[in-house]
Amino acid sequence: MTDEFLQAAIEEARAGLAEGGIPIGSVLVHRGKIIGRGHNRRVQQGSAILHGEMDALENAGRLPAQVYRESVLYTTLSPCPMCSGAILLYGIPKVVIGENTTFMGDENLLRQRGITLEIAQNAECIALMQHFIEQHPTLWHEDIGE
Amino acid sequence: MTDEFLQAAIEEARAGLAEGGIPIGSVLVHRGKIIGRGHNRRVQQGSAILHGEMDALENAGRLPAQVYRESVLYTTLSPCPMCSGAILLYGIPKVVIGENTTFMGDENLLRQRGITLEIAQNAECIALMQHFIEQHPTLWHEDIGE
Repeated sequence: MTDEFLQAAIEEARAGLAEGGIPIGSVLVHRGKIIGRGHNRRVQQGSAILHGEMDALENAGRLPAQVYRESVLYTTLSPCPMCSGAILLYGIPKVVIGENTTFMGDENLLRQRGITLEIAQNAECIALMQHFIEQHPTLWHEDIGE
Repeated sequence: MTDEFLQAAIEEARAGLAEGGIPIGSVLVHRGKIIGRGHNRRVQQGSAILHGEMDALENAGRLPAQVYRESVLYTTLSPCPMCSGAILLYGIPKVVIGENTTFMGDENLLRQRGITLEIAQNAECIALMQHFIEQHPTLWHEDIGE
């Protein structure tokens, strides 16, 4: 059974897909409660920086450092260098990653800096991205700077 | 004499300060022309992700990978891990940094990944941050996750 918070991130990814966007979602969880949720907004807002994780962090709003340090970030896809950098900036100690088979982010850097990563290899996350990349390869490459 | 693009980044920082914000500005320059400019929006928009560099990238809009690879990012302050990650995501090959004395960002990581850094140690950039940090230490620490 899928973790309830990973499930919430998947719901965000599906909401993004329904809007015509890239299906990547994320939630920030503080002490067992979702305090921010979001999904990739490249298409919807013409955004170059609102990846799923960034949108979740933005929607969580301004927070004291201590809150990030007691939080877990859930994301449907392995975090790219930008999102990994945001995790490092705020010192989020743990990241639960839906899958890293369709895209491998900066996981090595995160591990080197002491972040705990949990990779679910969730079939739904993989299917969402596989299907999207097949149908929109150019858009996907734009999102990862390729 | 200050480089015209670093000067534009400083103007952005000053605009942010005039709005009551954190005085850090940035411009993205493609083949000698500014294609995006911005400044830190933590205070103004209650944003956790709009550092100066992120705001400049966002305001540049969606761009093909090739444009980033021919661009230079100017920023008044050494880029934090999040902004460094964004530079890596988009493969921006060169960053001109106003100063790194009041805050040292993830310059080592950028250099390791082959990004060219030019540090101006510009007196105006240093004075802007020194004064701001003295007056608003809590706000500044929040911005860098401390």
